[in-house]
This record gives sequence, C-alpha cells and structure tokens, in this order.
Amino acid sequence: MGNVSAPAEKLCMNTATLRPWGLDRIVEECARRGVRAISPWRDQVNPFAFSEIRKWLQAADMRVFGYCRAGLFPHAMAADEAAIFDDNRRAVDEAAELGADHLILVCGGLPGGLQWALQSKDIEQARIQVYEGIAHLLEHARPARIRLAIEPLHPMFAADRSCINTLGQAVDLCDGLDPTRRGDVGVAVDVYHTWWDPLLREQIARAANRILSFQVSDWRLPTRDLLNDRGMMGDGAIEIRKIRAMVEAAGYDGFNEIEIFSDLDWYHRPGTETLDTCIARYARHV
Amino acid sequence: MGNVSAPAEKLCMNTATLRPWGLDRIVEECARRGVRAISPWRDQVNPFAFSEIRKWLQAADMRVFGYCRAGLFPHAMAADEAAIFDDNRRAVDEAAELGADHLILVCGGLPGGLQWALQSKDIEQARIQVYEGIAHLLEHARPARIRLAIEPLHPMFAADRSCINTLGQAVDLCDGLDPTRRGDVGVAVDVYHTWWDPLLREQIARAANRILSFQVSDWRLPTRDLLNDRGMMGDGAIEIRKIRAMVEAAGYDGFNEIEIFSDLDWYHRPGTETLDTCIARYARHV
Repeated sequence: MGNVSAPAEKLCMNTATLRPWGLDRIVEECARRGVRAISPWRDQVNPFAFSEIRKWLQAADMRVFGYCRAGLFPHAMAADEAAIFDDNRRAVDEAAELGADHLILVCGGLPGGLQWALQSKDIEQARIQVYEGIAHLLEHARPARIRLAIEPLHPMFAADRSCINTLGQAVDLCDGLDPTRRGDVGVAVDVYHTWWDPLLREQIARAANRILSFQVSDWRLPTRDLLNDRGMMGDGAIEIRKIRAMVEAAGYDGFNEIEIFSDLDWYHRPGTETLDTCIARYARHV
Repeated sequence: MGNVSAPAEKLCMNTATLRPWGLDRIVEECARRGVRAISPWRDQVNPFAFSEIRKWLQAADMRVFGYCRAGLFPHAMAADEAAIFDDNRRAVDEAAELGADHLILVCGGLPGGLQWALQSKDIEQARIQVYEGIAHLLEHARPARIRLAIEPLHPMFAADRSCINTLGQAVDLCDGLDPTRRGDVGVAVDVYHTWWDPLLREQIARAANRILSFQVSDWRLPTRDLLNDRGMMGDGAIEIRKIRAMVEAAGYDGFNEIEIFSDLDWYHRPGTETLDTCIARYARHV
C-alpha cells in the first residue's frame, strides 16, 4: 500500500471499482488499508456463502453499505412481472443476509432496452411501472428492514438502464411512496449521474434526510464509452467537493462511496494501484 | 430517388446529415426531391460565396431555416471574450446573408471542455456566462433581424458542448433575456437531446411560441459514440411523433428538421440512400 495514509472514516469502496479482484481479495485489501465499508454487487457476492462473507466482514470490522442492485421494473408483457419481482425479492433477502444499510435500485429503462431489443418506447408508461414496482417491493423490504435507495441514472441511460433520470424524479417517487416519511425508501446521489443537473442544488436540499447514499467518480473528457469509462476523482469535470457539501448541508452523514466502472482504463491496472489511488484521490478531491 | 414520394411540406434537411456531400450537391439533391428548406453548417457554407448560395436557393425555391451555429460562450480568461463575441457576430451576419429564419446557439460547456483541457469546473459560473453572452449577442442580432434559438443539449454534453441541458433551462434564459416576449430569442427542441426529460411535456407547453425549431433523429441502442452515433428516425427509442404533437399543441408550425450525425453508419453510405431514407422515414415516423 506504499505511502498512502489511512483512508478517511467515511470512505466506502463499491466493489465494482475493484472488479478484476474477487470479493475475498477485495475485503482483504480494503481491510489492510483500513477501509470500513464496502458496497458489493450481486455477481461478486454470488460465488461465496453469506456466512463466509459475514465472517470476513466481522474479522475486518467492515460494514456493507449499499447492496447492488435490484430494480429493472419496466416490462412489456404482464407475464414478466412475476419474474422481475422474484429476482428483486431475492436481492432484498441477500441484502438482509449481509446486513446492508440499503439496497440500490437501478429502476430500468424501456422494456427490452437492456437487451437492445425494444418492446415499447413508452417512457411515461415505463415510469409508472417503476413506481408500481417499488411500491410492491417495499411490502417485502419493510419487514426485512432493508431500505430501498432509488438511484437516478444519467439521462444517457434512459433507454436501457433507468427511466429515472433526475434527482427531482427520484424524490417525487419518494414523496408518493412514503408520504409520511417512514424512511424506508430514499435516494442515492451519484455525482456521475447528477452533476450536470441545473436543479441539483435545490433537489438535494429537497431530498434532505432521504439521501441514503452519496457516490463519487468523475466525468472524463473525452468520455469514450457510455457505461464503462468513468474517471478517477480529480481526472474529470465534476466539482465533487461542492456536491458533497450540498448533500452534507442537506443532512447526509453516511459513507462516500467510490464507484468507478472503467473497462477502458482502471480495470487494466493492478488492483492495488486502483485502490491506493482511490484512497489518495479521496483525500484530495472528495 | 427511386420510389420515394415527394417529401412533406415541413421537412427540412440539416446539411450535417448529408455531410459527405458539399453544399452544392446537397442543395441539388434536395431540390430534385422537393425538399423546401435546409439548415446549413458554417463549415459547409464557407467554401462558397453567399451570392452563389443565394442563387442556388432561389432557383430551387428553397429556404434556409436554421443556421448552425454560434455560441460556445463560457471562457476562463476575460481575454477570450472578445474573440468569442467576434465569431458569434460573424455567425449572425452570415445567417442574415443567407436569409436564415434563426441562428442556432450551442451555448458551450465548461471553459476548455471542447478541447479536453478544462480551465474551470464551475458549471454554475459557465451558465452565468451563457446568459451574459446571449444578452450581448442579442444587441447585434436584433438589428440584423436574426432570431437566436437556444438549443439545450443532452446532459452528456454538459462538460464539452453545452451547459444548457434541459428545455426548462433554455426557457428560463428566454424569460430573463426577453421578458416582454419580443420573440428575438427562443428555443430549439431536438428530440435527441430532450426525449428523456421527465419535464418535457410541461416545458414544451411553457415554451409555447418561443419554439423556433423542432429537430428529429433517433436514440440508437446501443449508442456507441456520444457525438456521432445518432440514429435514423424509427431505428431507436424515441417516440418522435408524440413529441411532435407536443410542440404543435404548443403552437409550433415551423419545419421539422432532420439532423443525424453518424460517423459510424450513415456517413459511410451513399448520400442518395441517406436522403431517400430520411424522406421515407419522415413520412412514417415524424
């Protein structure tokens, strides 16, 4: 770990950032550097038994922050609805097994969009299905004591990954789903998805204690791929520290999660370099 | 031109769609097919004398709709301001020479963003400079009788091309710049940039007679390049006809302009195929 000093108390590593490693190695390397929380993806969790993962985490005094992910609600055929719900319910159960703070919802784009085989172009209808899907999932998530974090995705993902594209929309969903502010549904604010939004400042203030997660990376120039070309903090266009100040002014005091998908750069470097750089850049830019 | 029937009265060809051709060939081929309006780019106009272009247009009974483009207002150093203004003023004069209906404003991203060499990350400051830049340019555009059309660009261009990323922002600018609705500044609604916007319907209604241009193409799945992978109408995720109905309900009765940047596909096909396909798809999908 070279000359990197201990990471800040609120640094959380999203495990996708260290994807070339398996979850076992990720926990080990993060623990060695004093990282106190991770947000794992289901496909990285799958190869291991929950009891085994819990043992690693306990030994490392490490928490699971966000569990990634459930969602993908819109569907063109009613027959698909049950399968979507079953999978989402399993995600809730897995999050509970891991003692996660919340489950991340990537709500889904147009039906068939993820498969590049559109079954419908009706984005207004897709958005209604997202609302109904979350309402349904909440009935399972509440007794499991897993909070759902609606993550608005950048508008460039509207067709294939999420038709929830602004923080304002996500907070609207919370207002509808949880009018009495029980707090079992909230939002995830990722600077990569939201930094461009002219209404960001006011929507963060409006979200207030509904913010369950704050995620960081950077917007590269050029951006060579829509999905997998996120930048390391400091290497792009985003005023991360300014946005962190906004969420903290709104009352957020959770972890700051580093989530960098980088097929084109970081995934080709040694994981130790990526992790050490995350910790160093966090200190300087988050 | 094969079996393609005469294009609809309101079809306008943006000349970038037929970029492999020179402007002379574009006017000739469009005229042969009965296209009544074009929106040319400055670099395609430059090789010719305005008097020559006017002669072609008159012979073809063809109008210049939008002139592309001015803008790029944000700057990190005060010294750059004069050069930006000079260039924008020239664009207004050129638009007037061509008898254009309006001049398209691509407002600019972060200073240095277009060159991938950021000089500032302050997007709020960039947005202030856009407002000031348009206000300044209006003083030159008004006497030239050239209307300025603020085109919000997709949020994926916030860093490098435009920090005006929603129709709501563009209409806000109009409210500030033209409170008495003289009409010398308005907005351009491009389905490619705006289709994802959850506030699109209400902002189009609010824009009302400030809509100076309506532009069409489609959002491909996958989108392989941020700038140059637009789809032909019907080949993507956008409900073009639904959005056209919104702008017409708001009072718009101008041309429907086809603007497809396609380094990855259409630019490699014969221009005749691209143009004939535009005309055929317009009839079916616009």
